Amino acid sequence: MKDCILAIHGGAGRLKDSQTRAPVRQDYERGLADALRAGQSILFAGGGAVDAVCAAVAVLEDNELFNAGRGAVLCSNGEVELSASVMDGNDGSVGAMAGLRRVRNPVIGARTMMGHMHGLLFGAEADARAERAGLEMTAPDYFITDRRRAQWSELRGTGAIALDHSDRDNVQGTVGAVARDAQGNLAAATSTGGLANQLPGRVGDTPIVGAGTWADNQVCAVSTTGKGDAFAQLAFARRVADLIELTGMNVPDAAAAALDDVVRVGGEGGCIVLAPDGELHQPFNTPQMLRGWITGAGQPVVGILPGEKIEIA
Amino acid sequence: MKDCILAIHGGAGRLKDSQTRAPVRQDYERGLADALRAGQSILFAGGGAVDAVCAAVAVLEDNELFNAGRGAVLCSNGEVELSASVMDGNDGSVGAMAGLRRVRNPVIGARTMMGHMHGLLFGAEADARAERAGLEMTAPDYFITDRRRAQWSELRGTGAIALDHSDRDNVQGTVGAVARDAQGNLAAATSTGGLANQLPGRVGDTPIVGAGTWADNQVCAVSTTGKGDAFAQLAFARRVADLIELTGMNVPDAAAAALDDVVRVGGEGGCIVLAPDGELHQPFNTPQMLRGWITGAGQPVVGILPGEKIEIA
Repeated sequence: MKDCILAIHGGAGRLKDSQTRAPVRQDYERGLADALRAGQSILFAGGGAVDAVCAAVAVLEDNELFNAGRGAVLCSNGEVELSASVMDGNDGSVGAMAGLRRVRNPVIGARTMMGHMHGLLFGAEADARAERAGLEMTAPDYFITDRRRAQWSELRGTGAIALDHSDRDNVQGTVGAVARDAQGNLAAATSTGGLANQLPGRVGDTPIVGAGTWADNQVCAVSTTGKGDAFAQLAFARRVADLIELTGMNVPDAAAAALDDVVRVGGEGGCIVLAPDGELHQPFNTPQMLRGWITGAGQPVVGILPGEKIEIA
Repeated sequence: MKDCILAIHGGAGRLKDSQTRAPVRQDYERGLADALRAGQSILFAGGGAVDAVCAAVAVLEDNELFNAGRGAVLCSNGEVELSASVMDGNDGSVGAMAGLRRVRNPVIGARTMMGHMHGLLFGAEADARAERAGLEMTAPDYFITDRRRAQWSELRGTGAIALDHSDRDNVQGTVGAVARDAQGNLAAATSTGGLANQLPGRVGDTPIVGAGTWADNQVCAVSTTGKGDAFAQLAFARRVADLIELTGMNVPDAAAAALDDVVRVGGEGGCIVLAPDGELHQPFNTPQMLRGWITGAGQPVVGILPGEKIEIA
């Protein structure tokens, strides 16, 4: 039996100063810790890595502080479009959905695509499939918070997406998780509301396996956050895995090299990478990345600013 | 000045015997040759690799024999949904659209996304953007041929996609091109109607950069065809490029290794790969792949069955 490990991110970006200080900071820290404990309890009960990453991501989706599920940013038409993907490092199977508007937990919707002949489904048909699978559905209003409506009111009609507004709340959203279960299986999952004021129909890196999500028991598990179009343009997550597998590069060097490519194409963000031996790295080139990890029966450890490691009792 | 090279594919799959013999065979051969000449004329006039691949793919889209643009397969709801992507190997820029129903040439639509902050746009917003860009729009009926309507009538309600019917016409569709222009720049483009009887909203590998399309001046240009979900699950095109770049593997070995992975996950298909030095390979593990190439001021060379090299005067 290997030690179980779960790591998550809750978005890389630029928080307002007020949000990295009490009392808002504590809300983020608690949200991260809740997600870590949800995944831990599954791993501890003998659950698989796929179960654990989906459970952790679903908790972040339910928490309106994070840009995924409830609390997601709004598209230019004032509506939400949610995306998620999940990958099983044991057999390479994948599931992904995009353009969701009704399924409460997009990551659980994405999971229903695992084993389906289609890997990625967009829009109304995806919601309908989730509903037929018995998942909890909601009205679109469930996802939309006052904070996001206010953000959209500022952006609407400007043609700008939130990335252009580094002076305001701008966690670039996306939540994700990577895990290793007791059998040594790896998995990764990612979920997002996209970019504030994005065009409806935008497909970023999050629902694309190889871009925002990757898992291979022999190599690593990866989940990304940031300017997703840059990560997608690079097939980022596959690149990190290939650098490790094909060159023997270590995890931090591979992640750093891939993030350098993101900067080169005008992007920014971060990722979490877990190796089969349990080595974990959570690098980012934005001022903050909401993140955390938990091992075995331990306590959650979270961070927002670079270098932070805060144990949550 | 380097010799210009253009290579294309028109789908890997299982043609009915009658289609690999005269007179239908000649129609396929002529269609491939027309596309090669369209790209050649652009390269010969000093045009760029991106211009050439888009021109060649657009000719295949306009030809109803191929599963892209006019003549595309129908989704389970009896409608078409078209996808395409293009990548510039010089600067790594990308453009992609999916779920298109109105723009006559999806690859030209995809190209309008190059330089946009979004890399991939799905559905009505994508068609609207193409229309605003001044592209030629059509009614959805333009795309639907009697042959595809008949195919759909056989499949509808069965839940099967055309892949399950290897005894009937089953070119797995997708068309694509790779090119090197006189400046040595590489580019790749791919376009498809997807899988016959697929669910509306399916996003396969074709509109996903790193899966169905890749271009990097220093490494290679790649376009794929086949069971797209398998190629997407593997981030196939990025994998081919990484094998070449990171291990020094030669082009045929890299393509063969990546196609072995496709088989391992239950898929089949083929790809075209062009190296910066002009080395070209067009491997496939289906009974046929429609394909061809043209160099400099030469004549088109096309093939359908393994090993065929037919010069078209």
